[in-house]
Amino acid sequence: MKKKRPGGRSARVRSAVLEATLAELAAGGYAGLSFEAIARRAGVNKTTLYRRWGTREELILDAMLELGARRVPIPDTGSLRRDLFEYGAAIAAGSRSPEIEPLIRAIASIGDRNQALAEASRRFWAVRLELASQMVDRAIERGEVAPGTDPALVAELIIAPIYFRLLLSRDELDESFVERLAAQVAPVN
Amino acid sequence: MKKKRPGGRSARVRSAVLEATLAELAAGGYAGLSFEAIARRAGVNKTTLYRRWGTREELILDAMLELGARRVPIPDTGSLRRDLFEYGAAIAAGSRSPEIEPLIRAIASIGDRNQALAEASRRFWAVRLELASQMVDRAIERGEVAPGTDPALVAELIIAPIYFRLLLSRDELDESFVERLAAQVAPVN
Repeated sequence: MKKKRPGGRSARVRSAVLEATLAELAAGGYAGLSFEAIARRAGVNKTTLYRRWGTREELILDAMLELGARRVPIPDTGSLRRDLFEYGAAIAAGSRSPEIEPLIRAIASIGDRNQALAEASRRFWAVRLELASQMVDRAIERGEVAPGTDPALVAELIIAPIYFRLLLSRDELDESFVERLAAQVAPVN
Repeated sequence: MKKKRPGGRSARVRSAVLEATLAELAAGGYAGLSFEAIARRAGVNKTTLYRRWGTREELILDAMLELGARRVPIPDTGSLRRDLFEYGAAIAAGSRSPEIEPLIRAIASIGDRNQALAEASRRFWAVRLELASQMVDRAIERGEVAPGTDPALVAELIIAPIYFRLLLSRDELDESFVERLAAQVAPVN
């Protein structure tokens, strides 16, 4: 396969198309997403779009991988509760951004019959939880948390309620909630 | 407004339409959901459908309220960890049923601009978390959990990771996961 330089035409097309995909998702949601509108907004040919992505799911998947490359910083304040709070607050704020929220809803709407997306999601979250686990690893080293604790599970207890509220219960996602959440998950202050 | 008996024609139409909606969601997801196909499957007129529900979101909302009326039993085993495990295992199994999963994905895909659905979701989950809180209330009474604990937040820590895995990370939702989850959330066995 011919390798394209990041600044080349191919990369510019991809970037324009993914940006247009996010804008169209924000405007009409996944149910209303059309190749026609994305091509128009991105200023590319519809056939280019079909050749490169083929389905809406592939577009969503590519947008997820693109945005997922932006790392959430892992705090290291010396207190697990504080770390979890700062991390959770960043996730909550990010998930509500007008660019990200429609993408998350689109991903959630796609069932596991789409194996490429399911597999990419699994990998994406495994990496993210592994990174977030560092906060718990350090707390174990400091003796703040019992050594038998599963770091990835603790990280999941901070991340999951944020997406549960965003996607399903639509309950408050403010800092006071994240504070209560972090206090419950890391009982030692 | 004329009151219809539960067994009357109006109730039969509603039940046929909601059943057809779930079947269509299971077949093609929310993005492919059409009034045409639902009307055909339910054996009703498309105009009847439009008159009564108007939008796809209203159909989804009505299906959610219908299925939401089925209560998840609240276990009372004398151990919080065991209660949370049994409750979580029931939620996980239910969420993966071919009838429920596509509905949950459809609900997650709809943004908060649809205020009727957002409001109904808030109420639905507030009731469900309140019911689940009883497990924690009893554990506080037994002295198993500190009195300051927020019962609804503990319930949310069991429920949220299940939907996070279903909708986003697509990680395992088996009983061994729910067991580890319950042990983390209720450290005292």
